[in-house]
Amino acid sequence: MKTETKVEIRKPAAEIFEAFVDPVKIGNFWFSSSSERWEEGKTITLRYDEYDAEGQIQILNIVDNKQIVYEWGREEGEPHQVTISFHEQDSSTTVVEVTEDGFVDDDPELIAKLVDNKEGWVYALTCLKGYMEFGVNQLRAALVK
Amino acid sequence: MKTETKVEIRKPAAEIFEAFVDPVKIGNFWFSSSSERWEEGKTITLRYDEYDAEGQIQILNIVDNKQIVYEWGREEGEPHQVTISFHEQDSSTTVVEVTEDGFVDDDPELIAKLVDNKEGWVYALTCLKGYMEFGVNQLRAALVK
Repeated sequence: MKTETKVEIRKPAAEIFEAFVDPVKIGNFWFSSSSERWEEGKTITLRYDEYDAEGQIQILNIVDNKQIVYEWGREEGEPHQVTISFHEQDSSTTVVEVTEDGFVDDDPELIAKLVDNKEGWVYALTCLKGYMEFGVNQLRAALVK
Repeated sequence: MKTETKVEIRKPAAEIFEAFVDPVKIGNFWFSSSSERWEEGKTITLRYDEYDAEGQIQILNIVDNKQIVYEWGREEGEPHQVTISFHEQDSSTTVVEVTEDGFVDDDPELIAKLVDNKEGWVYALTCLKGYMEFGVNQLRAALVK
């Protein structure tokens, strides 16, 4: 099973793509930091300073300004594949679509995991919209668990 | 079953409470409009101009600046009860908590409904944070289904 989340952002695809792959920018809407520029084949360490947590992702595929595919969780026994697609509607508007696949159908925690995952993506993409369109970079890290 | 969503907003509880109950304010972060001020016992019509949709909610209980409880969906055969609580942490910070109860355990659409509901609440509360803290009122109505 998978989750799918789509948000329209009034910026060109190339600009939004950079917000993900440029480690200087990610801290404005999502993780605190990213260890280096996202490129195909690299393993990237993402940190959440606020929760003193970090994790690694493997970048499987990148099509500049169009799509990013990465994997995480293989070592934890449940590999998830995340696809971030940038669908440019016109020169000033892009629909950012995130699909996360790899949830296990008969996992007793399935519902909680899907709901929690959806929470994370809706939150990250809304923070991204605030950052991209209005330069607001302090929406992140306010979800309370 | 129910969903629970909590977001920290750096504003006093009274100010955030007003954003929900004052029909002039709701269009800055959530629905386009609300038919009148939210008060106990009233039925309120909420409109989404963008989707040409509207619905009604019944306000069951209000504790000023602390909690709002309303119901929707009874006529559609699945009444849901929504509780919005404003937990003021100090004079400048409030945790807004939304619980929506009424999902039916053996509904074949249960997972989709829970995930969709979570999406809606995370989105609304993040838009609320943008409006309250930064005066940004154009984050709403950008989720793509």
